[in-house]
Amino acid sequence: MKNSISLFSSYRFTHIILMLVVLALIPLTSQAEKREFDLSIEDTRIVLVGKRDFHTFAFNGQVPAPLIHVMEGDDVTVNVTNMTTLPHTIHWHGMLQRGTWQSDGVPHATQHAIEPGDTFTYKFKAEPAGTMWYHCHVNVNEHVTMRGMWGPLIVEPKNPLPIEKTVTKDYILMLSDWVSSWANKPGEGGIPGDVFDYYTINAKSFPETQPIRVKKGDVIRLRLIGAGDHVHAIHTHGHISQIAFKDGFPLDKPIKGDTVLIGPGERYDVILNMDNPGLWMIHDHVDTHTTNGDKPDGGIMTTIEYEEVGIDHPFYVWKDKKFVPDFYYEESLKKDLGMHNSKVFKGEPIEE
Amino acid sequence: MKNSISLFSSYRFTHIILMLVVLALIPLTSQAEKREFDLSIEDTRIVLVGKRDFHTFAFNGQVPAPLIHVMEGDDVTVNVTNMTTLPHTIHWHGMLQRGTWQSDGVPHATQHAIEPGDTFTYKFKAEPAGTMWYHCHVNVNEHVTMRGMWGPLIVEPKNPLPIEKTVTKDYILMLSDWVSSWANKPGEGGIPGDVFDYYTINAKSFPETQPIRVKKGDVIRLRLIGAGDHVHAIHTHGHISQIAFKDGFPLDKPIKGDTVLIGPGERYDVILNMDNPGLWMIHDHVDTHTTNGDKPDGGIMTTIEYEEVGIDHPFYVWKDKKFVPDFYYEESLKKDLGMHNSKVFKGEPIEE
Amino acid sequence: MKNSISLFSSYRFTHIILMLVVLALIPLTSQAEKREFDLSIEDTRIVLVGKRDFHTFAFNGQVPAPLIHVMEGDDVTVNVTNMTTLPHTIHWHGMLQRGTWQSDGVPHATQHAIEPGDTFTYKFKAEPAGTMWYHCHVNVNEHVTMRGMWGPLIVEPKNPLPIEKTVTKDYILMLSDWVSSWANKPGEGGIPGDVFDYYTINAKSFPETQPIRVKKGDVIRLRLIGAGDHVHAIHTHGHISQIAFKDGFPLDKPIKGDTVLIGPGERYDVILNMDNPGLWMIHDHVDTHTTNGDKPDGGIMTTIEYEEVGIDHPFYVWKDKKFVPDFYYEESLKKDLGMHNSKVFKGEPIEE
Ligand SMILES: [Cu+2]
Ligand SMILES: [Cu+2]
Ligand SMILES: [Cu+2]
Repeated sequence: MKNSISLFSSYRFTHIILMLVVLALIPLTSQAEKREFDLSIEDTRIVLVGKRDFHTFAFNGQVPAPLIHVMEGDDVTVNVTNMTTLPHTIHWHGMLQRGTWQSDGVPHATQHAIEPGDTFTYKFKAEPAGTMWYHCHVNVNEHVTMRGMWGPLIVEPKNPLPIEKTVTKDYILMLSDWVSSWANKPGEGGIPGDVFDYYTINAKSFPETQPIRVKKGDVIRLRLIGAGDHVHAIHTHGHISQIAFKDGFPLDKPIKGDTVLIGPGERYDVILNMDNPGLWMIHDHVDTHTTNGDKPDGGIMTTIEYEEVGIDHPFYVWKDKKFVPDFYYEESLKKDLGMHNSKVFKGEPIEE
Repeated sequence: MKNSISLFSSYRFTHIILMLVVLALIPLTSQAEKREFDLSIEDTRIVLVGKRDFHTFAFNGQVPAPLIHVMEGDDVTVNVTNMTTLPHTIHWHGMLQRGTWQSDGVPHATQHAIEPGDTFTYKFKAEPAGTMWYHCHVNVNEHVTMRGMWGPLIVEPKNPLPIEKTVTKDYILMLSDWVSSWANKPGEGGIPGDVFDYYTINAKSFPETQPIRVKKGDVIRLRLIGAGDHVHAIHTHGHISQIAFKDGFPLDKPIKGDTVLIGPGERYDVILNMDNPGLWMIHDHVDTHTTNGDKPDGGIMTTIEYEEVGIDHPFYVWKDKKFVPDFYYEESLKKDLGMHNSKVFKGEPIEE
Repeated sequence: MKNSISLFSSYRFTHIILMLVVLALIPLTSQAEKREFDLSIEDTRIVLVGKRDFHTFAFNGQVPAPLIHVMEGDDVTVNVTNMTTLPHTIHWHGMLQRGTWQSDGVPHATQHAIEPGDTFTYKFKAEPAGTMWYHCHVNVNEHVTMRGMWGPLIVEPKNPLPIEKTVTKDYILMLSDWVSSWANKPGEGGIPGDVFDYYTINAKSFPETQPIRVKKGDVIRLRLIGAGDHVHAIHTHGHISQIAFKDGFPLDKPIKGDTVLIGPGERYDVILNMDNPGLWMIHDHVDTHTTNGDKPDGGIMTTIEYEEVGIDHPFYVWKDKKFVPDFYYEESLKKDLGMHNSKVFKGEPIEE
């Protein structure tokens, strides 16, 4: 009898395990959705700050490019149409492209560059999860550095880490450097001796960046993306920066600090507990990256605003500022998965 | 009987635990001292090396600024009087400022900048422990990068790590970069195209830096602070660099190496066992940071001198050098907690 | 009886342990070979790319210098003869030089520089294991930055890590930056305001670098060495970069990413599983480091070529390229330990 019970319970146990395994597998298969997006590349005038405009080759006419937000394992198709007068590609930075190397987007290595007027279709599986990005891979010293050919690609993990699950607000900060002497000379620029003189978060310099609005108890995730040519040192005041992910991959354990050094191509996801109401700076500690041209108090700077303290302080530079949401794609990130254009980043078409 | 004994011993055990808890809590409460310091900001001429002088806005007339050395949890008050002709603030870099955001020292965000002749009082709790620093937050591209407005803020931990307890000698190295064309044009500088041409440890370039004097068996702690505008790669010869802290926070486990990459705003505490008598270089491996103007053999360089080998070697550049102690605040760090001015760093007042 | 058996087995156990200990010690003593090498320093013309030549002070007339490949614990002797008209030394970067500080190769600190025509002998134990390098320590802003005075020093570990044992192909990538205006002015250069305009892997710019040829199942090790003056961000497409070693020391656990930030003097060993047949880029993500002078598509770039996909693709820039093996010392690394000159890196002697 004992044996038969034991056998029975053993059978039941095996059964339960099997069911759990099956359940665990379901998301991996059933959720692998097919997603198809269209991107155009357009000659577009954007404004970094004040009167400092720039001729870009902008994906869907905006810088940063549209947010592409998909689930790990999704089958992604992107049709890219080049409406400019120069060749381009898209490299999906961080995607492993297993079995799809010809969708890696490198001219002279994985494809012929997309000529003006042509359309090219990229197909790949969204793998691995994490903070990724996409950018042109033609003449990167010009197209990536100062023609705004970059945007965020966020791949949601099937199994998020505990620390990720605590996040209440999610922000994307793409960091760039610009050489204004090439602003309106498309097809030129990015040469030795260039004098970099503008620095931006999501293509805007302070004071035309936007605050990060929180309340006590929020947990924010800053997805830093090194989209430009320089190293940046992102310093957040008043809170502990927990550096949790590098290039989309979780670190073994978050590294604590207050300043995050990030180089071109790198991404760091920093998670901070909003436990300290106040007005706090986030800025590049490379001092010269907080200037606009030859003027101080610009560049890569923004603030965290707690609703508990408000913004109505006589000394606060942004006390009368009009708040523009979604500047960090924080609203788009809450929407359904897919591709999200944003009016916030839309420039002016440039007619030939 | 057994039960009563058991109960008794259980009672005693609980009692002992409670006592231990109480004992553990005592330092956290009883040692939270109130500490009040005065700082002035003064137009001051310092010399980086040779005849290369610089007009600075120096805290208490010295660069680096006075060492502020306090215990974790201390209540700190600093009265800052601006005796220059330009506005300034002090940001206490790394301090969490819990509940005291208006002491964070950021103009246009947490206060009006301190106008010439005015005094502003900062009040905050020294939290967290570690290698911190303080600096002006007005026009940082000029004031921090090349007007010497920075100093060390060391917060002793209540519960030091085992590796910290092994340290026998403690050194502060603040790294900076300078543009000599602005040397005597206060209120100007820090613009695109600037040519950096001087690099310093604690505001001195080699050969006017000082050696680190040790004997076999010492364990030294180098508190590297990125106070300037560039990334530095600090290479120590002949010893294993154990990178133990980033921005004041202990790393999960020290990272071993021989070269420490440090960006603006960052701090790394490197601990090295002095087990190898000799004369050894510590220098920036960014080669161009070991020049003074257009001359080689300068900048961010110093040596470790073991008493076992002495300095009387015919080839040794510093064999006749006059040793100036406390150049790394190593003597001040041994004194009682508080603020420590240092004659070593004192410049010349500049009269209008 | 029981006791005696027990005693006997205890004796046998102790005996076995002792034997194991003895066996474990044998390699540490018996394999510590004496190795002696000769190096000369020669005025040598090399070509970075196209017609861009450079006057170097090359070890054995080649840049990079010969591969020195030894076993941990070996006793190394190197006789260095200076055949140029300027003084030099060799610093063995990463070697602890325990008890041999006068072989550390620093002018004015551990020796008089080696004058033209003179020979100096360095003697040291190869310790610790890992990816090390050697370079001149005189006027490093010129000699190291742009006179090619550097080469790899690989110290094999006596007890390799499990991850190291999986490696099937081993590559050395030394990264440098050059200022062409000094190309043919030996004894000058490396001053503030210098415009860097060439960037190289093993002293060659794309497209004159060489592909990394693999097949599925290979595990490659990229030994990145920051030999120049700038920070580089080495991005590998299509694979997970496992950063396993810093400065020769194993990290506690490899860090995953796709972009490795490396500063001057640093080394990172990156291990990648070749599980994804295709043609893949490896390049510096500092965009301006992928130019040659004022031309795009150059600098620090190369590819991984899988034999499974071949190179005969119409879009592939290197489909007709003549393959030169050992460009990454990958062949030399398979040979017996010792010093390996390489024809690949040999320049032209410059006669006075
Ligand atoms: Cu890329
Ligand atoms: Cu700050
Ligand atoms: Cu060195």
